[in-house]
Amino acid sequence: MLVLNVGSSSVKFRAWVLGPAGWQLDCRGQLAGIGTAPVFRVWRAGCDQPADDTPYGPIDDAATAVAHVADWLEARLGAGRVSAVGHRVVHGGPRHADPVVVTSEVLAGLRELVPLAPLHQPACLDGIEAMARRWPGVPQVACFDTAFHRGQPEVASVLALPAHVRQAGVQRYGFHGLSYEYIAAQLPRVAPDVAAGRVIVAHLGSGASLCAIHGGRSVDQTFGMTPLDGLCMGTRPGSLDPGVVLFLLRELRLGADEVERLLYGRSGLLGLSGISADVRDLLASDAPAARLAIDYFVYRAAREIGALAAVLGGVDALVFTAGIGEHSPEIRARISAACAWLGVSLDPDANLEGRTVISARSSRLRVFVIPTDEEHTIAQHAARLAGLPPLTGVAGHRWAGSTAPARPGAGS
Amino acid sequence: MLVLNVGSSSVKFRAWVLGPAGWQLDCRGQLAGIGTAPVFRVWRAGCDQPADDTPYGPIDDAATAVAHVADWLEARLGAGRVSAVGHRVVHGGPRHADPVVVTSEVLAGLRELVPLAPLHQPACLDGIEAMARRWPGVPQVACFDTAFHRGQPEVASVLALPAHVRQAGVQRYGFHGLSYEYIAAQLPRVAPDVAAGRVIVAHLGSGASLCAIHGGRSVDQTFGMTPLDGLCMGTRPGSLDPGVVLFLLRELRLGADEVERLLYGRSGLLGLSGISADVRDLLASDAPAARLAIDYFVYRAAREIGALAAVLGGVDALVFTAGIGEHSPEIRARISAACAWLGVSLDPDANLEGRTVISARSSRLRVFVIPTDEEHTIAQHAARLAGLPPLTGVAGHRWAGSTAPARPGAGS
Repeated sequence: MLVLNVGSSSVKFRAWVLGPAGWQLDCRGQLAGIGTAPVFRVWRAGCDQPADDTPYGPIDDAATAVAHVADWLEARLGAGRVSAVGHRVVHGGPRHADPVVVTSEVLAGLRELVPLAPLHQPACLDGIEAMARRWPGVPQVACFDTAFHRGQPEVASVLALPAHVRQAGVQRYGFHGLSYEYIAAQLPRVAPDVAAGRVIVAHLGSGASLCAIHGGRSVDQTFGMTPLDGLCMGTRPGSLDPGVVLFLLRELRLGADEVERLLYGRSGLLGLSGISADVRDLLASDAPAARLAIDYFVYRAAREIGALAAVLGGVDALVFTAGIGEHSPEIRARISAACAWLGVSLDPDANLEGRTVISARSSRLRVFVIPTDEEHTIAQHAARLAGLPPLTGVAGHRWAGSTAPARPGAGS
Repeated sequence: MLVLNVGSSSVKFRAWVLGPAGWQLDCRGQLAGIGTAPVFRVWRAGCDQPADDTPYGPIDDAATAVAHVADWLEARLGAGRVSAVGHRVVHGGPRHADPVVVTSEVLAGLRELVPLAPLHQPACLDGIEAMARRWPGVPQVACFDTAFHRGQPEVASVLALPAHVRQAGVQRYGFHGLSYEYIAAQLPRVAPDVAAGRVIVAHLGSGASLCAIHGGRSVDQTFGMTPLDGLCMGTRPGSLDPGVVLFLLRELRLGADEVERLLYGRSGLLGLSGISADVRDLLASDAPAARLAIDYFVYRAAREIGALAAVLGGVDALVFTAGIGEHSPEIRARISAACAWLGVSLDPDANLEGRTVISARSSRLRVFVIPTDEEHTIAQHAARLAGLPPLTGVAGHRWAGSTAPARPGAGS
């Protein structure tokens, strides 16, 4: 079984092999630098050292990249061995509240959603098409970053726009759903006393958002219709007055495409600091602009934690996850300090060590660090929908390569 | 002394006469329907019945409207009697943290801010110019809706955009500052025990926003660069994913001007309900869309109260003001119920009667209804900057005409 996460400039994959003891993780890999300087790295299960397998010519699009991954897998595992492919798809639109086996009708519907995530959606779909052509009989399962949020109350998803605009699909969808679904599934094991309660999960990576989870279900989150909204991110600004976009168009005379590039690629921590999109660089810098960028990142996160606390009517637990959330004690400490008014108090040693529970005993809220694993969620859905034996439990292992705080190309 | 509030479709004014006992309110009035069907109504102090003084031909712009007000005032009070004019100006940009006597240089600077509030700023400035031409020796004092927020910390005003965009003036300015300034000035009298503390003021009218005030100073608020952002309003959507604007441009093929008209005039409560921009109509309707619009209005307000509570690190008091805030017990009750988690508990009778203190004795937060009076704030500044005797205390009176919940044309 194969899981693919196809972004605009990288393809990440993970493969499991079914043995007598159930699914065994076999390998994972990443083909980065699509369209520029492709680098293909693979990690075999149980081995922390990646192998560099990049002997190839130019790889300029997702379909070629996916074919390369398929070649490599067939060389490793033999041809005809893949029984299901799970795909991360950024946007499922208003329809898809659950993962789905991709048919040509489903694919056509997903293509219609490209305008809702123009920089993220096309590559996902190109990857599905390439795999469907390569292995025609193998079920392709699409898992959506929006699906986990589809049960939200209407007040959380609607936008105050005229009916004809809303009917064109304009609403708040929310993303990072595969990550939040994974965390929600871990809570009963990791934090049984709060799993049924009110939990705010902070997925802080190069993309960053918060999700308010009550009884395991998403009730609101910080993204909007696209992955631009909400928290300050590596290169995206987060919430922005709509009047700013009009100003960019009319006063700075930018075209819509230029505004899009500005907002997706040159804003956020990078735009504010002028130095880097990576919190590690900014924390290491003593430039005032770097400090401002970090201050703003923390301020926006703490402000939105207050907003989601209001939605939940109070909070029982706070969970940090994803690159920054899992690996930056300093950012966790600063956001937690700004949440002292909610009753958050950290155990400094536990935070520094990145233990699972980092709140002090006296803390009114429990605070957790839980590594996320979107690929595991996808694999579980793919196995289920393909009628294969279930993939159970947690990922249960940490990859050497996954310790990078701000995972480049982590997408939305 | 005259105060003018010139909007795109109305001019409101108020006049005081200096007598032996200090400033005495003489009259107020409104010329509405500029460009369509002008109606001129005036109220004399101490008289609840407005007089309709509309015998005129077409009034198509702010300058003509202001000249009409000046004609009427000279007929009432005699020529040469005006010693200062205070103007409400929506946008003071990054420079103006205080009211200012308008010179030609100041006016030129304010004209440069038109792109930041394209629908609100031009009429204000046309009104100032018209008055300066009419009464050349009379000081024109500009009071800014943005000024009260200028002392905010940088994290509250900055946006995560590249330096060249921020240098063009793109930041969060905030509005309703003249209203918040008035409320902040009333707090030591009305609520001496919380005036030095952490207060969230909800200015809910046809424009709606929240302000976090700590020790009498604004520390954050819900508007952005323009008066589009933040809470759901009568015809404006409030916070909106910037990707939505790109979608409107590219997928719905709207021009920037059409997007602007859509966002300023056909969104918010009106867009969501398809029925009305007025909460009274929506509360009276049993249409599901009307209910959704009210639910969303309340949800957004309660969510942002949480965000500002985070900024303040907790809240001591909540103040309702402006049309809806002063006159809709139902909206106050619903927003307060959604803030129960913060310790808000209303006294239902006090709320229904619109008393000054509407929280229950057991409420952890004190909740107030304080009528706002932007014109009074402007008059105080105008008197001070023109070297006239001070206008002290509160407005101290309620006008019959001011009981309309959602004041039409209340501007930003």
